[in-house]
Amino acid sequence: MHFLVTNDDGVDAPGLLALAQEIRKLGRVTVVAPDKNWSASGHVKTMNRPLRVKEVILEDGTKAFASDGAPSDCVALSMLGLLGEKIDCVVSGINPNANLGHDVTYSGTVTAAMEGTISNIPSIAISLDAPEFHTGPLDYLAAAQVARVVVEKVGKNKMPGNVLLNVNVPYLPFNEIKGFRITRQGLRVYRDELVRREDPRGRPYYWIGGDAPTGVPEEGTDIGALNGGFVSITPISLDLTAYDCLEQFQSWNIGK
Amino acid sequence: MHFLVTNDDGVDAPGLLALAQEIRKLGRVTVVAPDKNWSASGHVKTMNRPLRVKEVILEDGTKAFASDGAPSDCVALSMLGLLGEKIDCVVSGINPNANLGHDVTYSGTVTAAMEGTISNIPSIAISLDAPEFHTGPLDYLAAAQVARVVVEKVGKNKMPGNVLLNVNVPYLPFNEIKGFRITRQGLRVYRDELVRREDPRGRPYYWIGGDAPTGVPEEGTDIGALNGGFVSITPISLDLTAYDCLEQFQSWNIGK
Repeated sequence: MHFLVTNDDGVDAPGLLALAQEIRKLGRVTVVAPDKNWSASGHVKTMNRPLRVKEVILEDGTKAFASDGAPSDCVALSMLGLLGEKIDCVVSGINPNANLGHDVTYSGTVTAAMEGTISNIPSIAISLDAPEFHTGPLDYLAAAQVARVVVEKVGKNKMPGNVLLNVNVPYLPFNEIKGFRITRQGLRVYRDELVRREDPRGRPYYWIGGDAPTGVPEEGTDIGALNGGFVSITPISLDLTAYDCLEQFQSWNIGK
Repeated sequence: MHFLVTNDDGVDAPGLLALAQEIRKLGRVTVVAPDKNWSASGHVKTMNRPLRVKEVILEDGTKAFASDGAPSDCVALSMLGLLGEKIDCVVSGINPNANLGHDVTYSGTVTAAMEGTISNIPSIAISLDAPEFHTGPLDYLAAAQVARVVVEKVGKNKMPGNVLLNVNVPYLPFNEIKGFRITRQGLRVYRDELVRREDPRGRPYYWIGGDAPTGVPEEGTDIGALNGGFVSITPISLDLTAYDCLEQFQSWNIGK
């Protein structure tokens, strides 16, 4: 198995290194990751400028590729032949913060996996639900081990088409994690606030600020699972059609 | 009704002007759009830098706001109080190219509407299926009229929560459009190719090139509708859970 490991925090991120090291136990790993942080960058396809790729050495001495493109560009480049060989599985992460509810539409971690899915390659996004006010380096070991467990299962089963797995891991040692739950997308509660400031020349500028999002910890959801100390595995479909609303909109009799 | 009109091609784009002028027939319009082109930019939330907003004058002499943020940032800023008043409906477009199949995950036009939907505001994305090799200015009138028809219906009915409308319009005069179809997301066929070049100093760079995507014109899909000369209206859900795969993944017995 040849794994493509990427992330949205950049090639120097400790979560990427922990993930690459653990997935290497299952097969060959190539790391292609952005050369800078792309958090909340969405699903990007960079076509209006060329992309650079350079070889870099990770902290453990292994080789990796850093690109000035977005996470999804890193996956697209690799799928289109940058590496000169086939990819069997895309693993994206480990993001230091959970990607829950509507986060999946913004998340660079998840949209990197989307790009793999669109190319019909089994793809997994992994995020750690680190505590909001954590200081010092995070421990990614348990999340990396969870990633390995999930990726092993993906290798043994047939991934349905058009679907990726969005995995969120509670911030606990592996043996304290309660278990794994297949979940649905829950409801994030965003607490963004507009912060207006003036620059030294009196011209306004705006921050999207406010507190970190919370969520409704409903049973059966990603947020509920994490809240109970479980790993959340949400199958995410790239067919976004709201099938249960088709009839309702038919009844609107729009247009001629 | 107070409409927020935005796009991903930038505040100077003719599709934006045509849309704003037509929606103005239904109520008050405020234009907040990016100051540059953000095509295929995905769903962005800019939090690591402040955003600027400046007042500009559109070609028809009306006032608008241009921001250095992404399309979804323009919507977020407006939702969070930039304008000092409530928005009743977000209309994003008119994109000169169709947003079909998996395009919806990349599209700045669609992700602007996503941002409205996440704030529980009825939101619509409008794209024109302009011919691939069209030269000269595009005629956005029919697409603008279609937008008005759809927006009027949205005003008279209750939009389901967590859903936006992705509208694609064939490049035909309004009276030659065959009708309106409620559709599901079809299958795009991407034909991206990696183009490797060397700069004058012999260092490689890469373009994501290749031909424009095509699609499978299946009956009932967005691509099928456009192909038959119909307007395609696809309800897009922001709950991406692959509900029909939940049982399948349960049966994998992942982890403990």
